[in-house]
Amino acid sequence: MIDVVIIGTGNVAQHLLTAFSGATNVRVLQVVGRNKKVLNPLKKYTQANTFEEALIEADIYIISVSDDAISSVYENLKVKDKLIVHTSGSAPMDVLLPSPNRGSFYPLQSFSKERDLDFTTIPICIEAADSSSLELLRTLGTSISNNVRVISSEQRKSLHMSAVFVNNFVNHLYHIGDELCSKNGVPFDILRPLISETTNKVMHMAPYNAQTGPARRNDLNTIKMQSALLSNKDYKEIYELMSRSILEIYGKKL
Amino acid sequence: MIDVVIIGTGNVAQHLLTAFSGATNVRVLQVVGRNKKVLNPLKKYTQANTFEEALIEADIYIISVSDDAISSVYENLKVKDKLIVHTSGSAPMDVLLPSPNRGSFYPLQSFSKERDLDFTTIPICIEAADSSSLELLRTLGTSISNNVRVISSEQRKSLHMSAVFVNNFVNHLYHIGDELCSKNGVPFDILRPLISETTNKVMHMAPYNAQTGPARRNDLNTIKMQSALLSNKDYKEIYELMSRSILEIYGKKL
Repeated sequence: MIDVVIIGTGNVAQHLLTAFSGATNVRVLQVVGRNKKVLNPLKKYTQANTFEEALIEADIYIISVSDDAISSVYENLKVKDKLIVHTSGSAPMDVLLPSPNRGSFYPLQSFSKERDLDFTTIPICIEAADSSSLELLRTLGTSISNNVRVISSEQRKSLHMSAVFVNNFVNHLYHIGDELCSKNGVPFDILRPLISETTNKVMHMAPYNAQTGPARRNDLNTIKMQSALLSNKDYKEIYELMSRSILEIYGKKL
Repeated sequence: MIDVVIIGTGNVAQHLLTAFSGATNVRVLQVVGRNKKVLNPLKKYTQANTFEEALIEADIYIISVSDDAISSVYENLKVKDKLIVHTSGSAPMDVLLPSPNRGSFYPLQSFSKERDLDFTTIPICIEAADSSSLELLRTLGTSISNNVRVISSEQRKSLHMSAVFVNNFVNHLYHIGDELCSKNGVPFDILRPLISETTNKVMHMAPYNAQTGPARRNDLNTIKMQSALLSNKDYKEIYELMSRSILEIYGKKL
């Protein structure tokens, strides 16, 4: 049995709390946060306390707060001899120095309050300063996911940036599509089957091979015509930059 | 029974051919193309001829060729009194002037040779110069899809551009994610659950509400740090432009 204390009450913290609650070999002994209103509904899972209250002894302390709060939360933690990890995509493991038993436990997924997720498929990136801590994190990870990977701080930083491209920026393109549609009296709904198929394709093939469209086939007339249609300055710039980047990759300059 | 002749042998033409072959109230009497090698395997569905051979009489002629070939194919067509449509996203219906019975029949999807698609969910955008042609196209569309919509040439042009954003540009972001991962010794595979969830989210909610990430939460430190990580000039430019555009939408300037 692995005893865990979660420090933080954000999306990642709450998703981990519910995921661990369903695991047979993990006990979340405590969740710690600033705000009693946020803590109250978590009491159905475990003991929920503010930072002023006593910290419970556990095997692993998971700091799941915003990146710029990790250091100050860590400095006030009075358990320096235990395994301490954070869940950040960007912060290196060594922000938890001087702890000898430090690590990171980063679930690579976009968490929203409203959406239940199947944790078993979510990649969990683990890293630790020593091998026994790494094995403990591996056991913790496999208690909720079938997709646990050892990823260094450097790799994780790049991975988090890649995630911004394939998640936040992709969603922004969906938003642009939505805006262009509604400006023309067409419901966004009509784009959903295409969005779905675009994603389904790269579940089985490399995106490089899945590319189609005007820039891929060097159709400069269509590119020019579509770019001229755009009145929003940012969207026009995005259109031209993305088209140019695709043309360059497939060997034809704009 | 609607009798159809398909002119063209590209991805869209071939997908339409197989879809109509499964419909009970449509007969594809002929498919016409330039290349005998491409035509041969289509003979299992219908009569396949080159442009030099005689055109069969039908109710609807569907021109499914590249945009810049539509006009010349149309001019050589000797059936000006029949309903003639094209399947282009960008070309206006009126490239088929002076035909009185002209229209467009645009399936909004990304077609690849390798992938079988469920046509019933694919939006088919129809448009015609007169109401009886429109009704004929509606019957033709509903024979293969539950998602037939009347869309004007102007709307279709914008829709096709939106499709470039949510399909080609999205796929390009996937490619960038793939490249960044492999440069850092991480398999692209690790991003797939995130890609899948990003898309699943907008199946039920507006992209505007689904946005997360550094730019959405005005986390300028992470944006600066990630942009500095990028050595590829195009990708850095894409990162900064997309971040700026998201910051602007959610009310915070970079």
